Amino acid sequence: MFFASDNWAGAHPSIAAGLSAHAGGFSTAYGDGALDQAVYQRFNEIFEREVAVFFVATGTAANSLSLTAYNKPGGISFCHRESHVIEDECGAPEYFSGGSRLHAVDGALGKIDPHNLEKAVGRFAGEVVHWGRPMAVTITQSTEVGTVYGLDDIQAISDIARHHKVPLHMDGARFANALVALDTTPAEMTWKRGVDILSFGGTKNGCWCAEAIVLFDPGRAGELAFLRKRAAQLFSKSRFIAAQFDAYFSDDLWLDTARHANAMAARLAAAIEDSDTARLAWLPQANEVFAVMKKAEADRLQAAGAAFYDWHKPHGFDGHIGGDELLYRFVTSFATTSGEVDRFGQMIA
Amino acid sequence: MFFASDNWAGAHPSIAAGLSAHAGGFSTAYGDGALDQAVYQRFNEIFEREVAVFFVATGTAANSLSLTAYNKPGGISFCHRESHVIEDECGAPEYFSGGSRLHAVDGALGKIDPHNLEKAVGRFAGEVVHWGRPMAVTITQSTEVGTVYGLDDIQAISDIARHHKVPLHMDGARFANALVALDTTPAEMTWKRGVDILSFGGTKNGCWCAEAIVLFDPGRAGELAFLRKRAAQLFSKSRFIAAQFDAYFSDDLWLDTARHANAMAARLAAAIEDSDTARLAWLPQANEVFAVMKKAEADRLQAAGAAFYDWHKPHGFDGHIGGDELLYRFVTSFATTSGEVDRFGQMIA
Amino acid sequence: MFFASDNWAGAHPSIAAGLSAHAGGFSTAYGDGALDQAVYQRFNEIFEREVAVFFVATGTAANSLSLTAYNKPGGISFCHRESHVIEDECGAPEYFSGGSRLHAVDGALGKIDPHNLEKAVGRFAGEVVHWGRPMAVTITQSTEVGTVYGLDDIQAISDIARHHKVPLHMDGARFANALVALDTTPAEMTWKRGVDILSFGGTKNGCWCAEAIVLFDPGRAGELAFLRKRAAQLFSKSRFIAAQFDAYFSDDLWLDTARHANAMAARLAAAIEDSDTARLAWLPQANEVFAVMKKAEADRLQAAGAAFYDWHKPHGFDGHIGGDELLYRFVTSFATTSGEVDRFGQMIA
Amino acid sequence: MFFASDNWAGAHPSIAAGLSAHAGGFSTAYGDGALDQAVYQRFNEIFEREVAVFFVATGTAANSLSLTAYNKPGGISFCHRESHVIEDECGAPEYFSGGSRLHAVDGALGKIDPHNLEKAVGRFAGEVVHWGRPMAVTITQSTEVGTVYGLDDIQAISDIARHHKVPLHMDGARFANALVALDTTPAEMTWKRGVDILSFGGTKNGCWCAEAIVLFDPGRAGELAFLRKRAAQLFSKSRFIAAQFDAYFSDDLWLDTARHANAMAARLAAAIEDSDTARLAWLPQANEVFAVMKKAEADRLQAAGAAFYDWHKPHGFDGHIGGDELLYRFVTSFATTSGEVDRFGQMIA
Repeated sequence: MFFASDNWAGAHPSIAAGLSAHAGGFSTAYGDGALDQAVYQRFNEIFEREVAVFFVATGTAANSLSLTAYNKPGGISFCHRESHVIEDECGAPEYFSGGSRLHAVDGALGKIDPHNLEKAVGRFAGEVVHWGRPMAVTITQSTEVGTVYGLDDIQAISDIARHHKVPLHMDGARFANALVALDTTPAEMTWKRGVDILSFGGTKNGCWCAEAIVLFDPGRAGELAFLRKRAAQLFSKSRFIAAQFDAYFSDDLWLDTARHANAMAARLAAAIEDSDTARLAWLPQANEVFAVMKKAEADRLQAAGAAFYDWHKPHGFDGHIGGDELLYRFVTSFATTSGEVDRFGQMIA
Repeated sequence: MFFASDNWAGAHPSIAAGLSAHAGGFSTAYGDGALDQAVYQRFNEIFEREVAVFFVATGTAANSLSLTAYNKPGGISFCHRESHVIEDECGAPEYFSGGSRLHAVDGALGKIDPHNLEKAVGRFAGEVVHWGRPMAVTITQSTEVGTVYGLDDIQAISDIARHHKVPLHMDGARFANALVALDTTPAEMTWKRGVDILSFGGTKNGCWCAEAIVLFDPGRAGELAFLRKRAAQLFSKSRFIAAQFDAYFSDDLWLDTARHANAMAARLAAAIEDSDTARLAWLPQANEVFAVMKKAEADRLQAAGAAFYDWHKPHGFDGHIGGDELLYRFVTSFATTSGEVDRFGQMIA
Repeated sequence: MFFASDNWAGAHPSIAAGLSAHAGGFSTAYGDGALDQAVYQRFNEIFEREVAVFFVATGTAANSLSLTAYNKPGGISFCHRESHVIEDECGAPEYFSGGSRLHAVDGALGKIDPHNLEKAVGRFAGEVVHWGRPMAVTITQSTEVGTVYGLDDIQAISDIARHHKVPLHMDGARFANALVALDTTPAEMTWKRGVDILSFGGTKNGCWCAEAIVLFDPGRAGELAFLRKRAAQLFSKSRFIAAQFDAYFSDDLWLDTARHANAMAARLAAAIEDSDTARLAWLPQANEVFAVMKKAEADRLQAAGAAFYDWHKPHGFDGHIGGDELLYRFVTSFATTSGEVDRFGQMIA
Repeated sequence: MFFASDNWAGAHPSIAAGLSAHAGGFSTAYGDGALDQAVYQRFNEIFEREVAVFFVATGTAANSLSLTAYNKPGGISFCHRESHVIEDECGAPEYFSGGSRLHAVDGALGKIDPHNLEKAVGRFAGEVVHWGRPMAVTITQSTEVGTVYGLDDIQAISDIARHHKVPLHMDGARFANALVALDTTPAEMTWKRGVDILSFGGTKNGCWCAEAIVLFDPGRAGELAFLRKRAAQLFSKSRFIAAQFDAYFSDDLWLDTARHANAMAARLAAAIEDSDTARLAWLPQANEVFAVMKKAEADRLQAAGAAFYDWHKPHGFDGHIGGDELLYRFVTSFATTSGEVDRFGQMIA
C-alpha cells in the first residue's frame, strides 16, 4: 500500500529490459548515437511536428532550464502558488536563471485562474526597470493536486501569455496522466494550445530516470544545448535515457502505465467515497487522490503499512476539515495493484 | 575497435543486471531508501572512514558542485591547464559557483607542477579584494592524458593547498583506473594524502550513469545537500544510481573492469611500440594511449573501422611531430577486447 | 510643489560644500584614505559600538549585498509584500545572491505583521532541501508608505528572526526620518533591538549619493569586502562618499534635514485634513503622505505644477476609495519649503 | 609627489563647481532629468552618432555590464593577460555574467597581439558545447602599462572579432589619455574602428565618480537598462553624474586634463631618462611611466614623500632588471604639477 509518491516505484519491467537490451556495444556519446536519434524522431512523431528534445536528469532540471531558455534580466515567471516549481525545487529555477523571480498566482485546486494571471502579468507589463518584467508563464499538467487543465483552460492561459508576448511552459512531470485523462493527443495538449516548451516526464510513469525538455521552436535549440551542458545536465552515455524512452513509447507503454495509474486512483477514490472514516476532498482527475480523515485514523493506517503523507490545504478547497482531521495525499502509479487498493479500501471501509 | 572514448561503451552486464534486480518494489525516494543507505555504508568501508556521499548525474556536476561547496566571492580554483574542468565543461564550474574563476597551471603531461602551483596560488595569497583569492586546488586522477599522480605527487600538491588554507579536490572520473595503476587503496589515494572532496566516477568504468561526490568532511554535508538539490541534481528514484554502485562494488567488479581497461591500454601501447607507422607519444599509466602517426595513416585506420580522435599537444610533451603527423588518443574500457586490440595491432604492424 | 519623491531633490548646500572642500589634494583610494577612516569612526560613535561600514552606490546595492552577506543555497528572505526590495529593485537581491528567494509577508500599512512572519518563516524551518530554508528577515524603516516600526515592533520581528536563527536586516533608505520620528538613537533602533545589518541611506535625506552598509558583526567584514568589490560597488575615489557623510553628520545636519522633511509632511497632512477635495488615507509618521482624491482633481493639481504620483492600495488600508478616486503619494524632503506646502494647501483648500 | 594612481587625486575644481551649480532645485530621478538628457545628447555629438549612454558607479561595473550585455551560456571573453578586467576586478565580470569566462591573451606591453587573439578565439570557434564559445573581445585603451593601441591596431583586433562574430569592447578607463595621445576623435577611436561598446571613464581624469557605458548599437539599450538596474547601478539622483560630465565636456576640459596628465608623464619620463639611478622601462604613451631602479633607491624616494608602487614585469618587456632592482609604476593626472615632477626629477638626478 505504497501511496506516498509515484517516485517510490522503481522501473517498469519493460524499461529495465530496454536498458539491458541496449547495454552492449559502442555508441557515440553525448546524445548523438543512433538510439538517441531514433528517439528524437519518435518525439517528432508523437508531437506531430519537428521538436527539439533535450534529455536531462531531473524534473527540476527540465523546469529550470525551460525557464532559463527564455531568461531576461528582471524577468518574472508566473506559476501557480502551489506548483512544484515554487514549492519543491529549492530555488533551482531562480538559481539557474541567475535570479529571475517566480511570482505566485492563485487559482482553485492547483490550476492558475486566468483572471488572476491577467492581473498579475499585466501589472508588470510596462517594461519599467524598477519592477521587473514578464518572462514566462508556467503551468503544471496534471497539477500538484491531481487536477487537470482542460484544453480550453490551456488555451485561456496561453492567450494571456501570447498577449503579453511571453512563452508558455508546461511542467509535464505527470504529462501522460493528464493526456490519458483528457483522452487527447500530445500535440493538442501542447503546441496546438500555445505551449512553447515542455518538461516531459517519464520517471514518475515507469522509467528510472527519463526526463526531457521538448522545445517547440527548434530555432532555440542551439542555445539550449549550451544551457544544458553548462548546467551539467548533458549525459555522456545518453543512450541510457534513450533506451528508457524507446521502451516507454513502444506499443504505447507510456499510455498504458498512465491509464493504469489513473484507474487505480479512481478505484481508490471510490473506496474512499464508500468509507466511513475518510472522505474525498475533491474528485481526482489523474493519479493523485486527496482525502480528509482524522489524524488518529491516518496514524492507524500508516502503522498498518499504508504509506501516504498529509498535505497542506490548497487554495480553492472549501471543504470542511475538522479540528482533529487532516488532508492526506495518495499517489498511484504503474506499480500500484488493484489488490493493494482494495486492501486499503477494506481498512477504511 | 572503438577507442574514441570510454563513454562510448554501454553498461557492464552486471550493472545492467543490478538495475533489473532492483527495479521492483517500492522505496523511499530522494536518496533515503534502504539500498541508498547500504551503498553509502559501502563507501564508508571502501574509504575506511565516514564520508558523505552525494549521487549526481554527471562528472561535470560532481566537479562543479565540489568546487561550489567551497565557494568564496572572488574565489579562484587552480587546475591543470588541460584539465577537463577548464577544457570540457562549458564553464559549468564558474556557472555553478556564481562566477568563481578557474586559473590554469602548467605541468608536464597533465599533472600540475607543484612549483608552478605554489607560484600561482601564492600570487593571490594576500586577500586583496582587487585580485581575488585562492578557493580550491583541483587535480585529475588519472589525468586527461592517461598519466597518474603518484601518492607523493598528491601529497606535494596537498601540502601547498594546506599551506594556503584551501581545500584539495580530486576529479576522479577515472578514479579506478588510477587506483589500480598505483596498486593502492582509496583511502591512501585521497584523504590520507590530503584530498578533501572527490568526484568519484563510475560511468566511464562500466556504469550507465553513476557519479558521486565523496566529501571527507561530513560536517559540510548539510550545505552540500542544498547545493545539490538547488542544482537540480537530486534524483527522485535515487536507487537507480545506488543499484549501479551496488553492483559496481560487488566482488570488486570496479577494480576488475579498471584493471582490464588498463591492461588493454598496455596491450595497445605494446602494439604501437611494435608498429612501423605509429609511435607511442608517452607511456600510458592508465587507460588512455597517445600515439603519433601520419594523418593519412590515421585516415586509413578510421576508414577501416577504428574509432579514435586526434588530440592537441599537451604541455610538457617534447617528442617530435612531423608536418604530416598528428597526435592521436586511444581510450580503452571494460568493454574493450583483446581481440579488438590485436586486430588494430595488425593493422598498424 | 515637487512631492514626487525625495530623490528629486539635489544635494543640500552643506553636502555640496563638503564635496568642494575635499576635492583637492591626494588621498589613498578605495576607502582607505584619512577622511574615509574618520567617517568610519564617526559611524562607530553614532551607533555607540564598533561597526563595519561599506559605502555603496545605491540603496538597491546596500539591500542586495546585505542579504547576500548572509546568503545560503535555497535561502529565503522574508520581506513585506510592498517593500522596496521586492517591488522596486528589478530582482537585484535575487541576482546578487545567485537566486535566493524573497518571500512576501503581509502586514498593515507597510509593516510586517509578526504573526504572519512567524507563520511564513516557520513553514520553512525544517531544513528540507525541497522547500528551501530561511535566510534573513528584512524590514524597511521608515516603510514605503510612510509608517514607522516602533522599537517594540522591531523587537517583536527580531525575536522571531532570532528564534529561527536568521539575521535581521533593516532597509534604512529613510533611516533618519524614522529615527527622528521615534526620537530615539541609532543604537536603540538597530542592534539593541536585534538588527544585524543595516542599509543606511543618506541620498534621500540630502546627499547626492551616500549609501552605506552598516554591519554590526565586524567579524563578517572580510567577506563583505570581497562581496562589495565583486559587485562593482567599491568606489576608487571613495572620499567623495566620505565627504558627503562627513558633512551629513556635522552639527547633526542629517537629523535636521530629516526633522524638516517630517515636519513638511505633517504640514502637508494638516492641509489635506483641512481640504474639501482630498482626505488623508492614514496618518503620516515620517516624510510620506498618502491622500485619496478624485482623479480629476489630481489631474488639475498636476497640471498646475504639483508633482506627485498615484499609488497602489496597500494591504491593511481599509478606507474607502470611490470609483472616480485614486490613492496618491506625496513625499517631502530637506528641500521642501513650507511656502510650497502652503501653496499646495491653498490649491486644495 | 603623488604618483601612486590617478585615482588618488580628488576632483577638478570645475567638476566640483559643476556639482554645486546643479545641487539645487528638483529634477526627475533615475536618469530622466533635463540635465541627464542634455548630457546624453552631448555624447551623441562627441561620438558623431546616436549612442546609448548608461551612467554607472565604477569602471568595474562598466566593464562587467558591457560584457554581460553580450552574455552567452558558455561564453568566453578574450582580454589581455594583464588587463584590469582579469587582474583587478575580483571576478566581477564573471559574477555579473553568471559565470562566463575571461580568457587571457598575450601581447607585448599591455596590447593584445592579433596573431595570438586569432589563435585563441579560433580554438573555440566551432560552437562545441563542451568547450564554450567566443562571446566578446575586450581591449584597454590606454593600457594598464601606459601604452596605446594605434587606430590600425584597433582595426586589426576588430577584424578578428568581426570574423568570429563577436563584439569588441573597449575599456576606456583612461580613454581621454589615449585619445589625445593619438590626436584623433572619439568616433575614429571607437565605432569607426569596429568598437561595439565602450567603458567611458571620467573618474581618473578629473571627476569624482563619472563612468558611463557607451553602446554604439542603441537597439540593445532596452536590455541594458534592465541589466544596469538589476546590477544596482542605477543612480536615483543621476544628475550628480550628469553634472560632472557636463563640466567635464565643457570647453573641452576633459581633453585639457588628459593632455596635462600625458604631458606630466612625458616630463617625468624625461627626468628619468636623465637620471643616474633610474631608467625608463619603455616609452610612455599616455599618463603612466614605468621605470627600473634599485629597491633601495625606491625606498629612499618613498621615504622622502614620493608615492608610487612596484609593478610586475609585463609580457613583452625584455629589458634587464637586476637582482636588487624592481620595476616601478608612476601615474600622473590632471592634478599633477610640473613642480612636483621637477622636484622628483631632482631627487633622482
